[in-house]
Amino acid sequence: MAILLGPNQYGKAENRLVTVTRDGAVHTIRDLTVSTSLRGDLVDTHLTGDNSAVLATDTQKNTVYAFAKESPVGEIEDFALRLGRHFVATQEAITGARVLIDEHSWQRMGDHSFVQGSNEKRTTAVTVESSGAWVVSGLRDLVVLKSTGSEFHGFPRDRYTTLQETNDRILATSVTARWRYQGTGIDWGESFASVRAILLRTFAATHSLSLQQTLYLMGSAVLEERPEVAEVRLSMPNKHHFEVDLSPFGLENDNEVFYAADRPYGLIEGSVLRDDAEDPGSAWHTLPAF
Amino acid sequence: MAILLGPNQYGKAENRLVTVTRDGAVHTIRDLTVSTSLRGDLVDTHLTGDNSAVLATDTQKNTVYAFAKESPVGEIEDFALRLGRHFVATQEAITGARVLIDEHSWQRMGDHSFVQGSNEKRTTAVTVESSGAWVVSGLRDLVVLKSTGSEFHGFPRDRYTTLQETNDRILATSVTARWRYQGTGIDWGESFASVRAILLRTFAATHSLSLQQTLYLMGSAVLEERPEVAEVRLSMPNKHHFEVDLSPFGLENDNEVFYAADRPYGLIEGSVLRDDAEDPGSAWHTLPAF
Amino acid sequence: MAILLGPNQYGKAENRLVTVTRDGAVHTIRDLTVSTSLRGDLVDTHLTGDNSAVLATDTQKNTVYAFAKESPVGEIEDFALRLGRHFVATQEAITGARVLIDEHSWQRMGDHSFVQGSNEKRTTAVTVESSGAWVVSGLRDLVVLKSTGSEFHGFPRDRYTTLQETNDRILATSVTARWRYQGTGIDWGESFASVRAILLRTFAATHSLSLQQTLYLMGSAVLEERPEVAEVRLSMPNKHHFEVDLSPFGLENDNEVFYAADRPYGLIEGSVLRDDAEDPGSAWHTLPAF
Amino acid sequence: MAILLGPNQYGKAENRLVTVTRDGAVHTIRDLTVSTSLRGDLVDTHLTGDNSAVLATDTQKNTVYAFAKESPVGEIEDFALRLGRHFVATQEAITGARVLIDEHSWQRMGDHSFVQGSNEKRTTAVTVESSGAWVVSGLRDLVVLKSTGSEFHGFPRDRYTTLQETNDRILATSVTARWRYQGTGIDWGESFASVRAILLRTFAATHSLSLQQTLYLMGSAVLEERPEVAEVRLSMPNKHHFEVDLSPFGLENDNEVFYAADRPYGLIEGSVLRDDAEDPGSAWHTLPAF
Repeated sequence: MAILLGPNQYGKAENRLVTVTRDGAVHTIRDLTVSTSLRGDLVDTHLTGDNSAVLATDTQKNTVYAFAKESPVGEIEDFALRLGRHFVATQEAITGARVLIDEHSWQRMGDHSFVQGSNEKRTTAVTVESSGAWVVSGLRDLVVLKSTGSEFHGFPRDRYTTLQETNDRILATSVTARWRYQGTGIDWGESFASVRAILLRTFAATHSLSLQQTLYLMGSAVLEERPEVAEVRLSMPNKHHFEVDLSPFGLENDNEVFYAADRPYGLIEGSVLRDDAEDPGSAWHTLPAF
Repeated sequence: MAILLGPNQYGKAENRLVTVTRDGAVHTIRDLTVSTSLRGDLVDTHLTGDNSAVLATDTQKNTVYAFAKESPVGEIEDFALRLGRHFVATQEAITGARVLIDEHSWQRMGDHSFVQGSNEKRTTAVTVESSGAWVVSGLRDLVVLKSTGSEFHGFPRDRYTTLQETNDRILATSVTARWRYQGTGIDWGESFASVRAILLRTFAATHSLSLQQTLYLMGSAVLEERPEVAEVRLSMPNKHHFEVDLSPFGLENDNEVFYAADRPYGLIEGSVLRDDAEDPGSAWHTLPAF
Repeated sequence: MAILLGPNQYGKAENRLVTVTRDGAVHTIRDLTVSTSLRGDLVDTHLTGDNSAVLATDTQKNTVYAFAKESPVGEIEDFALRLGRHFVATQEAITGARVLIDEHSWQRMGDHSFVQGSNEKRTTAVTVESSGAWVVSGLRDLVVLKSTGSEFHGFPRDRYTTLQETNDRILATSVTARWRYQGTGIDWGESFASVRAILLRTFAATHSLSLQQTLYLMGSAVLEERPEVAEVRLSMPNKHHFEVDLSPFGLENDNEVFYAADRPYGLIEGSVLRDDAEDPGSAWHTLPAF
Repeated sequence: MAILLGPNQYGKAENRLVTVTRDGAVHTIRDLTVSTSLRGDLVDTHLTGDNSAVLATDTQKNTVYAFAKESPVGEIEDFALRLGRHFVATQEAITGARVLIDEHSWQRMGDHSFVQGSNEKRTTAVTVESSGAWVVSGLRDLVVLKSTGSEFHGFPRDRYTTLQETNDRILATSVTARWRYQGTGIDWGESFASVRAILLRTFAATHSLSLQQTLYLMGSAVLEERPEVAEVRLSMPNKHHFEVDLSPFGLENDNEVFYAADRPYGLIEGSVLRDDAEDPGSAWHTLPAF
């Protein structure tokens, strides 16, 4: 029996970067959280502690900040591609880089004053290897709710089933969406805005018979309208809103008063893809179970 | 030496309440977190475990949900007053009630679909006693940033001072504001919207020489424009944005690239009040140090 | 009508300080979170932005780190007193300092290796004024549970009461305790260890008829055994464990299977003091409502 | 172009389960967070909203609680296997189940009183398919620190490198470990305790030249001593402790006073496996990118 080093990567996580650009008196800010990780021929540091191939995570952090000055940050996808390509191009031992960026939203109040928007983040996960680059963009913490237009019935009943069927319930979820692009020559900002609008519009418009059905329709609507997207992955917790039983108080509750529960929650995850999609390559690269 | 029971209170914290009201096909939702606490002649339960005066916290929770059905929730101040007055009026032993409500914001997408707004909460803290009622409303988690128009200099330098003076820095904070009303016959919604707008407008418009100065101007602007407000208390963490030193990379950083730090943070707290304000009575009632 | 500046304070919150001391090969670490805040004649910075009295919060941070080197940290109460006295003694405008310290626990694995203990923190809140100093120490996030020996019955039943009486329930809480010392010449470490042991022992030994009763017994036990303590304040959320109704599955649940709920939770707060206690002075100083 | 449903799963996440068992007056408690998810032939619910194959997540929750009564919970691996096998065996459409359990630790104070231990959790992730079952157990939030015995030097220096080499630094991390078992007929409790002890012992004993080296040694030590383990995956954030520069205050800091930073942090992830390990099958099953 021999012991082997398996897949590994290392980097600097959650670099908090804020930039200010000036157009006369009018300022624009960007607010990003950037994580980088590198992989490649890293056997030596693992087996002997020889760090000659280990670009320090501190250096990775410095690179993020320096790159934000060297040219405008631009779309997060482009910034991530620039960073990833730099690491792979300049570090002989490094064969793959993964750059994750969350963008936090701010709304303008005045020329140089801003108020933080919702908790929703625009995200990208970019993988760069010597053979190519892949972009998976998305959003998370997009919390939506429908106060009607959601049913759930026809499910199997076994010994442990107590749930009543319903023709009218609140449907609420916090959407995490990731969509894989075909190619990298894309108008990222326009595409993001459009995909987000489609997801919201479909959630709102769908009469839901299950959260799975809503999820599928949201993903397929994106694919139908956005040819640059090969695949959409959605994770949608069912944030339960339970109708409160007011009958002990002589009151009828006609879907008016709800208790919003924290845990447990349903969790619906699924992907929708086009049959002629490009091979994903390393787009979804990750170390499983972390 | 004898041992005495000192100030005490008990209640049910963080009841999550969502309501749906219908105007034909158009629904309106409200999303509140309600905490109630009661005080009064509660010696027996503490000393002997006799609970004959202890309205169960479970009952307090039920009351919150039932009241949301019995009549429209309305403004959070009115809902809190109704709850507080009920507890004091109906429970002989209870001489004081405190009701805290946070309202979470949602934006309309369609007739019955909604997307969660920012993390900011509208708040109220209502105290009811047999002798009267006091309302302290506010907001929290209102995160604002100015990319210029903030200086900090002229501070004392002792042996431990290394901070450089600056004529131009980012100023960012997460505002917690609480303002004490005079009386309870107020158009709460209009007043809240106005106070919030004044706070934001003043933050944006103030050329700041210290966060304390900004805080004072924000509070005094509210008092100048809103006669129904007796006092404003503000807690404003200084969310530091440090200019990154890019000189090791041969780059100049002209207030363009910043590191947004988590901890430690400055914390500026202060109150502004009118000299002819009503006595606060029990408005700020709380058990200190909890 | 004139507008006045009311109570205010400012400082640096949550300085994370870790120290290593060496006794030959054997190292000892300390892990503290230190917050300082100052008050005094600070009208100028609020009204005009003149900072000549404002010892920068950055300087306060530096002082924390420098003091940790200048002499051993020692007990957190002594470290907080040293810091508070320094600020009041050296800054003419500063008449009051408040220093809050949380100590995080680590357990020794080897001469210089450690594993983090529980989430419980030992705390102190020290107030220093030119006229004196006050120490309130405590603990928080001490989570305890009794699987029996807890009843709750005899509470009033009104229109909104549905809770069943019980002679046997799980009682679980996360204790926040703060106790006020008389004087400052105390063996802080010995006193802390003893108070903590008394709180735990009393929680475990008390047959509880209400969480209020348990709270009172915990506080009074401390006062009976520790003459240096004038007053104990306790905040004890009732972390509800609901017996799951298994009857739909033909199963009896004899207090065996529980659902541990997050929200809402009961919240029991109270204080216990000796009748001949010293006046608290500024021991509990805080700006209410923050 | 056609649109396809890709990988998907659904379930109930974070069921909070506490059980009490009694041996005369001596009680034992278990505190688990259980998440279940199912996959299989779920096309209908996604495409048409036909839920005839969708065992409700509410039923999954009920099953967790009922199973905790029907027989003793036992080791979390066995409980997860029982649950997973039940879902796959009884639901015709369900071909795969994944059950994740975190166990929270409590320490005994008395016959029926307990105090919560550290934040560390024992974990398991069990996958059941009709063809077999796989167990990956682990731990997370195991926070460890070495105050010396850690170096980092010899790393490449590029244009963006400013980090100084060091022969003596604090090394601190929060270990997440997952290890894949070969087979399911294992003494889970004994194995867990041993693996945990090996991880701790190796972290403490290793003179570290890089966190990668420490990670590799921790994983390989487990493989050397525990033949039932095929593979170990470790995620170890580098919780930076920066030596504070005290020279402006005329003080020397000889690795004594540190600032413990929150973000950014290094993140080292890697796996170690034996060359003759069983094929992992579905052990690491997950939907990537969620």
